[in-house]
Amino acid sequence: MPTDTPNILNYLTSEDICKIKDFSKDKATPFLVINLKKISDKYDVLSDLLPYAKIYYAVKANSHKSIIKLLSEKGSCFDVASIYELDLLLGLGISSDRISFGNTIKKSSDIKYAYNKGIRLFVTDSFDDVAKLAENAPGARVVFRILFECEGADWPLSKKFGAHPDLLFSLILEANKKGLIPYGLSFHVGSQQRDVGQWDRAISQCKYLFDAVKAEGIQLKLINLGGGFPAHYLKSTHKIEVYTNEIDRRLHEDFGNALPEIMIEPGRSLVADAGVIVTEVVMVSKKSFLDQHDWLYLDCGIYNGLFEAMNELIKYPVFLELADCQTNIKEFIIAGPTCDSMDILYINNKYSLSAEIKDKDRIYILSTGAYTDIYSSVGFNGFPPLKAYILDED
Amino acid sequence: MPTDTPNILNYLTSEDICKIKDFSKDKATPFLVINLKKISDKYDVLSDLLPYAKIYYAVKANSHKSIIKLLSEKGSCFDVASIYELDLLLGLGISSDRISFGNTIKKSSDIKYAYNKGIRLFVTDSFDDVAKLAENAPGARVVFRILFECEGADWPLSKKFGAHPDLLFSLILEANKKGLIPYGLSFHVGSQQRDVGQWDRAISQCKYLFDAVKAEGIQLKLINLGGGFPAHYLKSTHKIEVYTNEIDRRLHEDFGNALPEIMIEPGRSLVADAGVIVTEVVMVSKKSFLDQHDWLYLDCGIYNGLFEAMNELIKYPVFLELADCQTNIKEFIIAGPTCDSMDILYINNKYSLSAEIKDKDRIYILSTGAYTDIYSSVGFNGFPPLKAYILDED
Repeated sequence: MPTDTPNILNYLTSEDICKIKDFSKDKATPFLVINLKKISDKYDVLSDLLPYAKIYYAVKANSHKSIIKLLSEKGSCFDVASIYELDLLLGLGISSDRISFGNTIKKSSDIKYAYNKGIRLFVTDSFDDVAKLAENAPGARVVFRILFECEGADWPLSKKFGAHPDLLFSLILEANKKGLIPYGLSFHVGSQQRDVGQWDRAISQCKYLFDAVKAEGIQLKLINLGGGFPAHYLKSTHKIEVYTNEIDRRLHEDFGNALPEIMIEPGRSLVADAGVIVTEVVMVSKKSFLDQHDWLYLDCGIYNGLFEAMNELIKYPVFLELADCQTNIKEFIIAGPTCDSMDILYINNKYSLSAEIKDKDRIYILSTGAYTDIYSSVGFNGFPPLKAYILDED
Repeated sequence: MPTDTPNILNYLTSEDICKIKDFSKDKATPFLVINLKKISDKYDVLSDLLPYAKIYYAVKANSHKSIIKLLSEKGSCFDVASIYELDLLLGLGISSDRISFGNTIKKSSDIKYAYNKGIRLFVTDSFDDVAKLAENAPGARVVFRILFECEGADWPLSKKFGAHPDLLFSLILEANKKGLIPYGLSFHVGSQQRDVGQWDRAISQCKYLFDAVKAEGIQLKLINLGGGFPAHYLKSTHKIEVYTNEIDRRLHEDFGNALPEIMIEPGRSLVADAGVIVTEVVMVSKKSFLDQHDWLYLDCGIYNGLFEAMNELIKYPVFLELADCQTNIKEFIIAGPTCDSMDILYINNKYSLSAEIKDKDRIYILSTGAYTDIYSSVGFNGFPPLKAYILDED
């Protein structure tokens, strides 16, 4: 099935394109260019749409210092997945009361480390972890994560995180008994979730658990709605308003006007659309004289930035820099530069590009601000990790 | 389907285990330990079994300097995937006549760079690349890669590399016309190939092409048998002798006693079994009270060393360091430490381990000397890349 030929102007303005082209021209490919202004705008839109929600930026999506500084100045809080991310934030002067430790998988030593640095908000989903929290983070506020199957998400989070509500009920009582503060519930509907109804189901489960533990004398205070808000990839999805309206409606339906504290953890949705990977055509070839599709090999692939194209899960918009060749279009298979066949980006989904494409032509891969450079391998096949530049700084 | 409980002594001697345990005890997990002696032995075995084959170690499998130095001292040649690997070798004093540039996907500038450093042996599979070679590496010897579908390989190389023999035939004539030296043919049956018969088919195709271009006045001189020799993972395969005997038989059947020069490119088969990843249990948990399988979370996962467990393609042998708990066995799902569900190692294939397993227990993941630390992400979720130690050096 051919993919429809999309238009770069649905993603970037002509001014954006000129800026990137100008910024890029003397730099060796491949690299990522990040437009901070777009991140700032996305943050403002989300704040306006859910004004009562406290934003905890999921640092794992992109931990570039300039992004952290920008969001910190805008008043964002932060969610970290490890003590290394925690150290990065503290090193940038962000105070520990603006940081939540969201990874449910933690070593005792890491809990202790974070606690000693002032972290008092942790997410959990197991008896093992609650025992460690009680010992190493006494009196901390704990958020319990509900297991969620994430149907409809491009990048599902499956069963790895969270637990069944029945187990969480016991876990909340256990945490309370051990001197922790059962503070709230969290869930994550999956990254790049397309089905808005998934939030409804999750919020209902929160309501059920709020009530169930209240009967045991425990008053939960917070719901963490997680992330899952979309980025603008090839396959279209709803506008952000559709998500936030539905969430808002459902929260009020379940909790009336006495909403609990609301926390959200956007990552991808804040930073993805702000990134463009600039890559170069290394080779165009045929496998046999009769092949219908040529192969287009780029100097950026699965191992140096485009890991999320693995199994073609995320379909990035891909455009030739020289946009005046839109007349003679052909479908290509796209692959990365390494000696490894997992390093094929798109073979089931062909991409339509100019039939005249040739070596050294530059290609823009859009919406690549999240989960790209930080995923790069340290040096698979010797290739260095993807560089990242900030558009308005460097 | 439960996996049979394997025995660590099928992989390591008691002496090996003691050595690793002793070496590891003061080091923070996770890390990779490499036993150079094993690599040396594997090299010797392969040299003895195919004495007429020139070994070009595939540097991409593990580019640790100590491994390169060891193999260099033993007389090995090397195959590189990029100019970065080339620079590494040249920096270690390896002369350019012992190096082949095996990646068929090359920038003009990289061909020129390698040529200027003395590289005269290149692999190709396209008209695009041959044109670039003719311009940037005039008079170089060129090996043409045959497309091979790699059925039977755990890590197939599919259609990304090589071309159909009919196209290669024309390509050989073209290279000859452009002043390059058509030197030989190569193929790769896929990494961790289990079906010995795959080499037969490939060698027959070589014979066909040797004859076809000879009729045009071109005498090819070399066959590069590629890699694909097995490492000792969980799923058993033939001994290396079974492979080399079959290859030897087939070569003589097709070429009689006037064998062409034979080159092989082992990577995985030389280094995989020499590596052990030492990792620690971070958490053991249930998702619901009724779950049949517990989750075992390790501090090493897909993003910091175990990338080849992606989609459960490579099934590594996994053992508890304390081997005296073999009586009470239970099946576990195994996952890595990051906030990402792709970071699940084994969920379809459960692993049998002691039911008493707990936080901080150490786990050995065997046969992890190839394609592990070098695949690590630079810092996904903040976690640092996997460290590597040489057992007898550090």
